[in-house]
Amino acid sequence: MREVAIIGVGLMKWGELWKKSFRDIFVEAALNSIDDAGVERIDSMYIGCMSGGLFTGQEHIGSIMADYLGQKHIPAARVESACASGGLAVKMGFLEVASGMSDIVLVGGVEKMTDVDGGGATAALATAADQEYEVYNGITFPGLYAMIARAHMDKYGTKREHLADVAVKNHSNGLHNPNAQFQMKISREDVLNSVMVASPLRILDCSPITDGAAAMILCDLETAKRISKKMPVRILGIGHASDTIALHNRKDLTTLNSTVKAAQDAYKMSGVKPSDIDVAEVHDCFTIAEIVASEDVGFFEKGEGGCAVSDGRTQIGGQIPINPSGGLKSKGHPVGATGVAQVIEIVEQLRGNAKERQVENAKTGLTQNMGGSGGSSIIHILKGEE
Amino acid sequence: MREVAIIGVGLMKWGELWKKSFRDIFVEAALNSIDDAGVERIDSMYIGCMSGGLFTGQEHIGSIMADYLGQKHIPAARVESACASGGLAVKMGFLEVASGMSDIVLVGGVEKMTDVDGGGATAALATAADQEYEVYNGITFPGLYAMIARAHMDKYGTKREHLADVAVKNHSNGLHNPNAQFQMKISREDVLNSVMVASPLRILDCSPITDGAAAMILCDLETAKRISKKMPVRILGIGHASDTIALHNRKDLTTLNSTVKAAQDAYKMSGVKPSDIDVAEVHDCFTIAEIVASEDVGFFEKGEGGCAVSDGRTQIGGQIPINPSGGLKSKGHPVGATGVAQVIEIVEQLRGNAKERQVENAKTGLTQNMGGSGGSSIIHILKGEE
Repeated sequence: MREVAIIGVGLMKWGELWKKSFRDIFVEAALNSIDDAGVERIDSMYIGCMSGGLFTGQEHIGSIMADYLGQKHIPAARVESACASGGLAVKMGFLEVASGMSDIVLVGGVEKMTDVDGGGATAALATAADQEYEVYNGITFPGLYAMIARAHMDKYGTKREHLADVAVKNHSNGLHNPNAQFQMKISREDVLNSVMVASPLRILDCSPITDGAAAMILCDLETAKRISKKMPVRILGIGHASDTIALHNRKDLTTLNSTVKAAQDAYKMSGVKPSDIDVAEVHDCFTIAEIVASEDVGFFEKGEGGCAVSDGRTQIGGQIPINPSGGLKSKGHPVGATGVAQVIEIVEQLRGNAKERQVENAKTGLTQNMGGSGGSSIIHILKGEE
Repeated sequence: MREVAIIGVGLMKWGELWKKSFRDIFVEAALNSIDDAGVERIDSMYIGCMSGGLFTGQEHIGSIMADYLGQKHIPAARVESACASGGLAVKMGFLEVASGMSDIVLVGGVEKMTDVDGGGATAALATAADQEYEVYNGITFPGLYAMIARAHMDKYGTKREHLADVAVKNHSNGLHNPNAQFQMKISREDVLNSVMVASPLRILDCSPITDGAAAMILCDLETAKRISKKMPVRILGIGHASDTIALHNRKDLTTLNSTVKAAQDAYKMSGVKPSDIDVAEVHDCFTIAEIVASEDVGFFEKGEGGCAVSDGRTQIGGQIPINPSGGLKSKGHPVGATGVAQVIEIVEQLRGNAKERQVENAKTGLTQNMGGSGGSSIIHILKGEE
């Protein structure tokens, strides 16, 4: 298996982008990644997208995006694992290069969520849950994560304030991210007084509905060293695991088994342990998700995740900075793009390019991207190539 | 890159399966493939599916299927390239094994199309066309392929009867396929007198709307030789290419550029030429598509495809038997499953297991799977391991 490195990354300003189409936003991020890498060709493309069909009435997403990027005839594939579609695209790009099938691969993620018609964005997102056992009975994601939050509070004494502090931290980080959808400071009281969505989760516990795209260029390490003007970032390890989607089939709601398994596999593949990680991006689709994930990837003992946030251990400068980008909470959550953007934030951190949100001496980073309420998880471990 | 072989295949009876769910049909085919391979574990899964969201309200298809197959926690990914989603899944499974990431991989395809609500199956399928330039102006796939047929008739003198003879041949082959949706003999007159859909295409020129699934087990050739009780079938070559989706952007409607490019790449990778192919499955979503594809993969000169069918050169026993399975036309076209089922037919032919539809002395086979009106094509070249 060949070593694989990231040599270019591209983002764009995320938000409610009513003046830009589905294909526009993908092409904008993709061109930025090509410029950043300085490559003159790409050999193939992978795109993470959760539901082009339900959000925009467009499937066949690989081909449409290859064409609009001026790359028709190259192999172009769309991959899906609900909100982990972006992370899955990174994994597929890795395999394409690692196997020797291609040398230079564009990996992107995109979702256009705000001009959905039909049942609306919440109904489209609910297709990541189990239709037969969950959705047909009326529950959508805020309700599912509210049950996880209640179980965590009950079992470990996690407090409502701990959840709020995740949102406060991530919005504080996102203030320094020019691409974030919501660059606004919020207080613990703002969260606690915001409108109730699904008890105990309030609107400021929830990531927003977002239009956005992200892209990066992968190549084999040898080519990277030859052509890259910036520091290549190696993908050291990948973990990818699934779990039952329906919550009623899990023994314990307070642990995301797919994240635990994916983390074990990623640590094993990379030879890195949790204490070696300098910076992480985890999937804070709801505030409780960050707390549970931070435990399940091994940064904290089970039940300590809430206190860790409120003690400042996950802020920039703390024991293990989590979501310096602002996370899904502040940056936005265009579901197919999120997993790619998480990896991009780690690349910028390892390159030392993260400006006001830079984590000092970041050498090794981790991303945790999750589909649904943990039906799938994909973890990447990245290291700057000295 | 490791050599990759197919060691087990699984199908099920396709049709309007109103008593079976989306997950039921996938699991049925998957269990059949596991039984056929005789494996005791699978390391990861890839599933081709065009639009779980629009057809059944279920995305996150990798995880839901892994769970219902009793395989939760394994990596499970869904991939999409419209009607070429199944072929894409085979490619991804190949890369997973070739790279060394997994040893034993289940590759499946599934689509549940007959209990769609909302805009119906034709509207869901139309998301494989260009939404902004084609679909919003009212055209769907029968109309797009009708334009291709008209152009081919105009440029090469292809006759209405040639189109009919594709349907007659494929239904004749499908009579001997117990899994086919429509096991019925039809005559040229039946086709020519059937109801008009989009001139010149009549209902018997069109593949049907189908519920169905297909699955196979891939592993590295070394493991295959050790554990397989049946003849392993090697994936010798893969070609995967894209083209502009919208027809108005193509210089020539009578050639599928993505198929031409994918075929070139697959022949190059495998070291095989068109005249070495003993049997082929090509994507006859409409009768004209088989004629064009049979030229574009190099079996016939441009413009000869129509005569070749009517001269019997593509029937079992002819120069190059095409669609011995009955093709999409008779077998049915559950879009995500089609590309996997094409490869399965070639495996059965190379194993000598195809009974009444067996092509004598078939040693090397080819599949051509296509998305939309040729926005993507994926070609596999397969050879029985002696």
